[in-house]
Amino acid sequence: MGGRRDEIVAAAAKVFQEKGYHQSTTEDIASEVGMLKGSLYYYIDKKEDLLYAVVEPPVRRMVLDLQEIIAMPCPAGEKLARLVVAHLETFDAHHPHIFVYLQELSQGRVLGPGPGAGAELGRLGRQYRELVAAIIAEGMRQGEFRADLDPQVAALGILGMCNWMHTWYRPMGRMNSHDIAGTFVAILLSGLRQNGSIS
Amino acid sequence: MGGRRDEIVAAAAKVFQEKGYHQSTTEDIASEVGMLKGSLYYYIDKKEDLLYAVVEPPVRRMVLDLQEIIAMPCPAGEKLARLVVAHLETFDAHHPHIFVYLQELSQGRVLGPGPGAGAELGRLGRQYRELVAAIIAEGMRQGEFRADLDPQVAALGILGMCNWMHTWYRPMGRMNSHDIAGTFVAILLSGLRQNGSIS
Repeated sequence: MGGRRDEIVAAAAKVFQEKGYHQSTTEDIASEVGMLKGSLYYYIDKKEDLLYAVVEPPVRRMVLDLQEIIAMPCPAGEKLARLVVAHLETFDAHHPHIFVYLQELSQGRVLGPGPGAGAELGRLGRQYRELVAAIIAEGMRQGEFRADLDPQVAALGILGMCNWMHTWYRPMGRMNSHDIAGTFVAILLSGLRQNGSIS
Repeated sequence: MGGRRDEIVAAAAKVFQEKGYHQSTTEDIASEVGMLKGSLYYYIDKKEDLLYAVVEPPVRRMVLDLQEIIAMPCPAGEKLARLVVAHLETFDAHHPHIFVYLQELSQGRVLGPGPGAGAELGRLGRQYRELVAAIIAEGMRQGEFRADLDPQVAALGILGMCNWMHTWYRPMGRMNSHDIAGTFVAILLSGLRQNGSIS
């Protein structure tokens, strides 16, 4: 049953990304996977379960990856660089699943404080943001990062830079995620200004 | 008729932000403004017109503001700082209208290459992005900014940092847009690293 269910989840991710979660019907998903709508309900109870099955694994993976990066014995700057690279790699490895998450998050839906699955996704999202802020705070404590900024706002800015990519980035497109990560890391760590520029 | 229509557009902005454009009905909007659904159609033809009326003015305003900033006789770094401040001020001045734009943009809807209103919004969005990239390219040409980055990718990163705020920022909340703009500008121009830090 695992294989068939995986196919359904992959089909749901594709349909959700193209049409948006709310405009997608279980009929669309059944048609994408090539089965009758009635047969689909043998594998799932309701459309909401599919949304959770699509977005929860990559989001949980991202939290685990970031915990691993934080535990590494290296400077905060390197941790931040690894975070951005890992974050953007997710857009290739878990496409379109992770984009469905960001798209629905933009609608304030998945991450609402609701009960059950939505609450768990909300918890993971907050945990991820806290981990990013923790890297920045660590860099400040160690004198590596400037200490005059709010780590929470900085973390939200970094996440915005990365997450907004769901509106313009497509895997295998003109730009690859590694080059983009390099540009973002350069700006975040050293800024756009030339070294020594005082203007 | 202007005043009544303005009320309807403001009500539509509120409803669209809360429920999402697709889940909102003209009935919801009529009820928000306190009129009968039938009367609403005296002022508008269809729901899509209301979306355009909600998001087009602030987006056009942002493009005009940015053109004014670009024309100023000051260094690119100051233009970039002014851009971020102006961009974030829009989130206060045109709330929730501009958040409806960003929310629906995240769904790939408003800015599709479709005909009519959608195409015009798409043109404004691309123009804005090009203007941001132009400021960065100008700074590079003048030796003020580092020249080893792609101005387009940098522009998309900056816009992401700002635009993602629609998922977490609320006017009159704990953080104000001026403080947030200050943090973003500091990171974008000078980076998180301490001056002189080589780690």
